[in-house]
Amino acid sequence: MKRLILLRHGQSIWNLENRFTGWHDVDLSDKGREEATEAGRLMDSAGLAPDAVYTSVLTRAIRTGFMSLDVLGRLWIPMIKDWRLNERHYGALTGLDKAETAAEYGDEQVHVWRRSFATPPPALDDGDQRHPRHDPRYAGLDPALLPATESLKDTLARVLPYWESDIAPALTRYPTLLIAAHGNSLRALVKHLEGLSDEAITGVEIATGDPLVYELDDRLAVSAKYSLRDGR
Amino acid sequence: MKRLILLRHGQSIWNLENRFTGWHDVDLSDKGREEATEAGRLMDSAGLAPDAVYTSVLTRAIRTGFMSLDVLGRLWIPMIKDWRLNERHYGALTGLDKAETAAEYGDEQVHVWRRSFATPPPALDDGDQRHPRHDPRYAGLDPALLPATESLKDTLARVLPYWESDIAPALTRYPTLLIAAHGNSLRALVKHLEGLSDEAITGVEIATGDPLVYELDDRLAVSAKYSLRDGR
Repeated sequence: MKRLILLRHGQSIWNLENRFTGWHDVDLSDKGREEATEAGRLMDSAGLAPDAVYTSVLTRAIRTGFMSLDVLGRLWIPMIKDWRLNERHYGALTGLDKAETAAEYGDEQVHVWRRSFATPPPALDDGDQRHPRHDPRYAGLDPALLPATESLKDTLARVLPYWESDIAPALTRYPTLLIAAHGNSLRALVKHLEGLSDEAITGVEIATGDPLVYELDDRLAVSAKYSLRDGR
Repeated sequence: MKRLILLRHGQSIWNLENRFTGWHDVDLSDKGREEATEAGRLMDSAGLAPDAVYTSVLTRAIRTGFMSLDVLGRLWIPMIKDWRLNERHYGALTGLDKAETAAEYGDEQVHVWRRSFATPPPALDDGDQRHPRHDPRYAGLDPALLPATESLKDTLARVLPYWESDIAPALTRYPTLLIAAHGNSLRALVKHLEGLSDEAITGVEIATGDPLVYELDDRLAVSAKYSLRDGR
């Protein structure tokens, strides 16, 4: 049996400030750090010892992985960081205050951007300093790969090939595998693992700091699912 | 030009307690953590931005790398952990109090074990719980590779092949490369880079928490060397 543990990072500073975050590299708040430590304690109590951790290239997810492994005394396991596990890119909304955005565009439009499956927010111009082409962490990538905005559908379209090419094969070598990532990149994996429809996945909320465990058989079909804190 | 930055971890809890450490996975003390943060500040002031970090599988080196990158806002770079960058294995002395060991074996014998090039301390038995074969972090390795004790010469004999096979080739992709490791694994690299004799390297002390920068040409010959804190 293999175990895949999905861990959504906790509160960030921009969550506190009620701003759209996406690929902006904002750090965890003190509460977010406590959530990461508590996630480590929950894995420890459950006897779960990850063999490797996959994470995004965003500090809030990397720190969540590191702090949870620190509690487990397993900082020595491989940590693989990849942009394809990043949060959904929020395009031109990145950094904007959510209330101000609603006042400008209307609640209904903002609701569509936040909750629809296939409608992305307005794209960033190439010259906008918020565009990932200006961030050194993406300098080694083909610029054509870098999103200027994303719908949830677009996020799935880069997470799932990475699952197929890298994470799923790694479960052979690392039978207990932790993924420390973001609400929408984890939704992509949940949709795939549970075979959910496009409509259904938009309604799924993954709790922060609550390790979600999937037990998988050798063909990577789900044989059990439970969360460690809330038991969902 | 390429830059190799060697960073020796700072004070550990067993340094404080005056015990032989080697491969025992003891953590940094508060002072050791401050040294790691200060090393990050020194790299930041010098405008050094590592493209990747190599470290051992021991927590004190991993944490030193992480904390220094945290200061630099570069937690997102690849971090590669490998046992071949571990501290010298101290054999049957692991965990013993240094003063008590001197009282038992004599100052002269202990001096030979600590300072000679080729004389290892007594080996651990396979059944000794301190033997690396009982540690899950080495479970994927051929047990024949795992040392039961090491001289400095033995440490060199596993560090240098790793330099040749992995680190030196990585300098093409990562032209500014940080190695966060230990006094003796870093000595192996210093000996190689500077072409020092067996005798000379036993007298070299690498300062803790003081990033030591080697500027290398395309054939990886040293063109300049300086440390960031003490300027040595």
